[in-house]
Amino acid sequence: MKGAILRVNPRCQIVDITHEIEPQNILQASWVLKNSYSYYPPGTIHVVVADPGVGTARRAIVLQKEEYSFVGPDNGIFTWILSREARGSAYEITKRNFFLTPLSDTFHGRDIFAPVAGHLSLGREPRFLGPRVRDLVTIDWPSPRLSKNALGAMILWADSFGNLITNVPRQEYGHKLEGRPILIKGRGWRIDQIHRTYGESRAGQPVALFGSGGLLEISINRGNAFNVLGLKPGDPVTMKLL
Amino acid sequence: MKGAILRVNPRCQIVDITHEIEPQNILQASWVLKNSYSYYPPGTIHVVVADPGVGTARRAIVLQKEEYSFVGPDNGIFTWILSREARGSAYEITKRNFFLTPLSDTFHGRDIFAPVAGHLSLGREPRFLGPRVRDLVTIDWPSPRLSKNALGAMILWADSFGNLITNVPRQEYGHKLEGRPILIKGRGWRIDQIHRTYGESRAGQPVALFGSGGLLEISINRGNAFNVLGLKPGDPVTMKLL
Amino acid sequence: MKGAILRVNPRCQIVDITHEIEPQNILQASWVLKNSYSYYPPGTIHVVVADPGVGTARRAIVLQKEEYSFVGPDNGIFTWILSREARGSAYEITKRNFFLTPLSDTFHGRDIFAPVAGHLSLGREPRFLGPRVRDLVTIDWPSPRLSKNALGAMILWADSFGNLITNVPRQEYGHKLEGRPILIKGRGWRIDQIHRTYGESRAGQPVALFGSGGLLEISINRGNAFNVLGLKPGDPVTMKLL
Repeated sequence: MKGAILRVNPRCQIVDITHEIEPQNILQASWVLKNSYSYYPPGTIHVVVADPGVGTARRAIVLQKEEYSFVGPDNGIFTWILSREARGSAYEITKRNFFLTPLSDTFHGRDIFAPVAGHLSLGREPRFLGPRVRDLVTIDWPSPRLSKNALGAMILWADSFGNLITNVPRQEYGHKLEGRPILIKGRGWRIDQIHRTYGESRAGQPVALFGSGGLLEISINRGNAFNVLGLKPGDPVTMKLL
Repeated sequence: MKGAILRVNPRCQIVDITHEIEPQNILQASWVLKNSYSYYPPGTIHVVVADPGVGTARRAIVLQKEEYSFVGPDNGIFTWILSREARGSAYEITKRNFFLTPLSDTFHGRDIFAPVAGHLSLGREPRFLGPRVRDLVTIDWPSPRLSKNALGAMILWADSFGNLITNVPRQEYGHKLEGRPILIKGRGWRIDQIHRTYGESRAGQPVALFGSGGLLEISINRGNAFNVLGLKPGDPVTMKLL
Repeated sequence: MKGAILRVNPRCQIVDITHEIEPQNILQASWVLKNSYSYYPPGTIHVVVADPGVGTARRAIVLQKEEYSFVGPDNGIFTWILSREARGSAYEITKRNFFLTPLSDTFHGRDIFAPVAGHLSLGREPRFLGPRVRDLVTIDWPSPRLSKNALGAMILWADSFGNLITNVPRQEYGHKLEGRPILIKGRGWRIDQIHRTYGESRAGQPVALFGSGGLLEISINRGNAFNVLGLKPGDPVTMKLL
């Protein structure tokens, strides 16, 4: 992909954000994108490939939003970009003269997204790539269930430190959880408050805190929660509100 | 290695192609190189380090081919670059004034290949690095065995998605396999045709398809074939031609 | 982090040295840094984040040493930089106008170190970031124990090839170990001399050699010592001097 970008624009500066998205985990990719894109300078082109439907009828798109461009599959990966105030303008990539040939059925990252990103970096406007799209695919957030005395959450993924990221956003639930007694219990461990930092508890102790991406995570101070706590993506986590 | 390149040429643009070659797997490294190099702009210098023989008598070489340069060990890693029409010109790197000192016995990537690549990027011609080499080491492709009713193939490696890459190149076997009934059987699973994309089968189902690198692979739609199918590099796979 | 650097200085050239430090392993991070920094061109700014104490009272610092700058937490990570002849000048980063806002409690790499590195790359002098620091935190090297007939060493970490890196530096122990008969024994394997290269023994055989980072390592020629030998970080290793 980097070669395909540089062939179009040899002066393009390419940086890797991550190659650690779980395969096919569109939800994780879309959340990481939401938390990264706006730290980059205006004019940055974000190429995003988490693309299990490659080669099927799913569309290839360019999205312009604020001062950024996004290139990738129309599979919901841009959901959290869209869910802010403005929705931006999206275009389907249909003009085959921007594609590499022969076009593969399994690697549109290399054959479509990368060369299109190269052309965008040279100033090509998205409206020349194909028709306007107004019905981008979106995915639903697997919202936690709030009852009177408990919050029913879920583990979404583990990051590279083994922190277990849940589906509980600080923006919605932070004021309900922080600074009050709670109880999260597992086999041989319990957490009874939301901490602010990993280092606030003793080494080896589990902590729950809102991470830098804005989601509640269950971690172990100086340890790997994924390896130790017996929780994995998809597992339910109940937080009692005491 | 990046420091050693930039010390020679601070304006050099460095991109990482991959750090995920299986240790010591020269066959995999050479195949990935074959499938990547020509996507880069003319003038690109490819530094390749899969070098189990570092510190022994194996030569360090620079190869020029088409509009690209390649720097690395003479251990067969350039086999598939050479196996195309033209063979290019190769030079052994012997002039020690391009090496870092002290020269280590275990990391020629840093001490030889990287600084030499830096000098090449400044326009230094390979013929000044050492004598011409006309007998580059090559490795044999572990060809599948074709009999009347079956193709005896082998798993070569697993990629980062868990796709199991076989030794069956599309160029030679595509027309024999695509569009006809076949049978690949394992414990509790079977594949009865070559698909075009991962998404053509149901999620969780094994598929066989020719990947973007040109080799037949056994995959699981939205899953990890390496973890699930009980096949690993070196294992035989028999495809019955029905 | 890359975005936060580029937002301050879009022309900054960023390269990744490693993302493979074991989580929270400050000793490993500090050793890799010691072995990497001086290969980079003068003027390079090294941003180092192995930061288990993020959000607690540990200081954020900039260190200037020779022609390099270092940005990171004051947790001992710069120990081996300091242990050379000169100690450089260090400053605590306290001026909040260089921070991203809102400042997170869990990701100072992004919110403090990265933007500060961006400003340094534009020529900002460290003394404007905060007060001089003269008592940087250092960590102790877990020295091997030398007795009359044996060296009591320890496995510190495994690298990405599975080589087991010990706490025995060549500088101190090389002349005591190289070229004389020794004995390292494990379950079903033994090593009886220090080798110079991986390739000097037969494939599959364990070897002990001083690696490119200057520490004695236990490796398997064309194999993965970590997976095979039953040794892990923290384990003792006794070398008999025969």
